[in-house]
Amino acid sequence: MTAEIDEQPDILAGLVQQRSEIAEVARAIAASPPRFALLAARGSSDHAALYAKYLIEVLLGLPTGLVSPSTTTLYGARPDLRDVLLISVSQSGGSPDLLEVTEAARERGALTVAVSNTASSKLFSAAELAVDVRAGEEHAVAATKTYSATLLALYLLVDAVRGGQGEAVRDIGELARRTLDGSESAVARAVDRYRFADRVIAAARGYSYATALEASLKLAETSYLATRAYSGADLLHGPVAAVDEETAVLAVTSKGTGGAAMGDVLGAVAERGADVLTVGSATSDMPGALHIDVPETAEEVAPVLEVLPVQRLALGLSLARGGDPDNPRGLRKVTKTR
Amino acid sequence: MTAEIDEQPDILAGLVQQRSEIAEVARAIAASPPRFALLAARGSSDHAALYAKYLIEVLLGLPTGLVSPSTTTLYGARPDLRDVLLISVSQSGGSPDLLEVTEAARERGALTVAVSNTASSKLFSAAELAVDVRAGEEHAVAATKTYSATLLALYLLVDAVRGGQGEAVRDIGELARRTLDGSESAVARAVDRYRFADRVIAAARGYSYATALEASLKLAETSYLATRAYSGADLLHGPVAAVDEETAVLAVTSKGTGGAAMGDVLGAVAERGADVLTVGSATSDMPGALHIDVPETAEEVAPVLEVLPVQRLALGLSLARGGDPDNPRGLRKVTKTR
Repeated sequence: MTAEIDEQPDILAGLVQQRSEIAEVARAIAASPPRFALLAARGSSDHAALYAKYLIEVLLGLPTGLVSPSTTTLYGARPDLRDVLLISVSQSGGSPDLLEVTEAARERGALTVAVSNTASSKLFSAAELAVDVRAGEEHAVAATKTYSATLLALYLLVDAVRGGQGEAVRDIGELARRTLDGSESAVARAVDRYRFADRVIAAARGYSYATALEASLKLAETSYLATRAYSGADLLHGPVAAVDEETAVLAVTSKGTGGAAMGDVLGAVAERGADVLTVGSATSDMPGALHIDVPETAEEVAPVLEVLPVQRLALGLSLARGGDPDNPRGLRKVTKTR
Repeated sequence: MTAEIDEQPDILAGLVQQRSEIAEVARAIAASPPRFALLAARGSSDHAALYAKYLIEVLLGLPTGLVSPSTTTLYGARPDLRDVLLISVSQSGGSPDLLEVTEAARERGALTVAVSNTASSKLFSAAELAVDVRAGEEHAVAATKTYSATLLALYLLVDAVRGGQGEAVRDIGELARRTLDGSESAVARAVDRYRFADRVIAAARGYSYATALEASLKLAETSYLATRAYSGADLLHGPVAAVDEETAVLAVTSKGTGGAAMGDVLGAVAERGADVLTVGSATSDMPGALHIDVPETAEEVAPVLEVLPVQRLALGLSLARGGDPDNPRGLRKVTKTR
C-alpha cells in the first residue's frame, strides 16, 4: 500500500500524457450526444462514479444517475436506454453485476463506456468504448492508485467531451508529489491523534463529497473504524445528533463553492464538541484541531489530490493499530457480487 | 413519537382511500410519458426517494437518478430536462435547496411533482403536480408517520402510472396494525440486547435498502449510535472488514429476490462474529441472534411495513439510553440547507 500510494504522482502524470487516447473515446461520445448519463460501480469505484456525476451535471449539463445494479440483476429491469450514456467504473472489471448491467444497457440502446484498470477484463470488452486507467497492477486490497487514476481518467474524459484540453490537470503529477511531500508531518500528527478514535464521520460538499466517501471506506477497511460519510447538507438533516465529544470529523474543504458551503456544517459539529480534522486547499480559515493542506487547483479536480493524504492517514492508522493494510481481514482484491 | 408511530395503520389505510387523488397526478404523468426520472430529497425523505427509484426502474422501466442538489444550488448547473420527470420529496416542503432544484427543473422543461406532507408549503406550489401525503402534522423531530406515508404515496403514484389499482396495498392499514402488535415483544428483546451497543450496521438489498438507510438514520438521530447502512453488495466490497464481534448488524430480509440475496451477506458477517438482528417477512431461515417478523406482502411494498418495528426499536433504545426521542439534541423539525 505504501509503494502504491507513492507511485501516484508518476501514474497521474503518465495518464495526462495519454490524454489523446481518452479524447478519442470522448469524440465518439460527442458524436452522438447523449441526453442522460448513468454510472455503474461498486466500492471505491462508486465514489469515483459520484465524482463523475458532479462533473457530468455541472460541466456537461446532463442529468445523471447512479445505477442501482440490483434493479437489473435481481429484478430484471430492462429500461429503454436510447440517448443514454452508461459509464461502468471498476478497477478490476471483474464484478459480475457490473458486467450484467453493462451488457443489458448496451442491448437496450445505451452508449456504453467501461473505465477500468484491467484492459483484459470482460467488462472492458463488453462495453462499446473503453478507457484504460493505466495505474499498473494494484496488489494491496485497499484501492489507492487505481482510485486517483480513475478520478483523473473520468475528469479527462468529461473535459474532452466538452472540448477541453485538460488544462486544469496539466501539472497534476507534480501537484500530487507536492501534496504527498507537504502533508507528511500533518498526517503523522493525525495518526497520533486518532490512534484511539473509534467514531469517525467524514463530510464534504460538492465534488469533494467523493473524497469524504472514500476516506470513510479507506478508514473502515484498513483500520476497522466505525466511519461514515455524509454530504454536509445531509449531515445537518439528522445524523448531526449523533456527533459528540467522542466523534472525530474529517472534513474535506477545498477552495471553491463546495468547501465554502462547509462553513455551517463545521460550525454545527464544532458546537457539539467534535474533534475536527480538515483536509484540502481551504483549511486554514476553518475551525479544527488539525489541518492537512493540499495545493490549490480548480475545484473540480481537487478530489484527485485530497485523497492522497487521506490514504496515508488510513495506512498510518492501520499500522498504528496493529492491522495489515495490504490484507484487511475478510477482504479479497476482486469482490464478486450480483 | 410513540403516538405518531401508533397512528400509522390509520394513516396508511386513509391514504389508500384517497388513491383517486394520486391516480389523477399519475394520469397527468402518463399523458406525457417521461424518458428519465429524477428524485430530489434530503434526510428520511431521501430514503423514500431511493425506494421510489427502485419502483420506477423496475415497475415503469425508466432509468432514474437521485439528484445531488448542490450541482444546482452551489454550482448552478441547469441541464436540459425535457422528457424528465422530477419528483421532489419533502415532508415539510421547507428546505430551500429542494425548492430551488424544483423551480430550476421546471424552468428547464421537467415535469415536476412534489410529494409532501405540507400542502401549504412553497414546494407544493412550485411543482406542476403535487401529492399530499396526508399524515397529519408531525411533532416529533424524528420522522415516523410521514416516512411510511410517503413510501405508500410513492408506491400508489408509481403503481397508478403503470395502470395499477393499488391491489398490493389494499390491506396495508390492517397489515401495519398486525406488524406493530405482532412485533412488540421481539422489539422489547432487541431494546434490551442493544442497550449497550455502539457500532451498528444496517444492511439490505433491493427495495428494502431504503429500510436499512432509514433504520440507520433513526438510530443515529434518536439514540446517537454510530450507525451506517449499506447495500448488502456494497458491504462486501470493503466495509465488511470493519465488522467484528462488537458490531450489531440489523439486516432487513423480506420475502423476495432482495431478501434472498442477503444470504451471502449474512453468512459473511456471521463468520466475523457480528451480532445479527433480522427484520422482515423472511427472517426465520436466516442466521441471527434475534428476529423481528413482519407480515408478508408483495416485495415492492414490504418497506412500508418493515420500518414500523424499526421505529419502535429506535424509540425504545433512545428511552433506555436516557435520550429524548421527541427532541434529539441539535436538531429541529425543518432543516434548511442550500
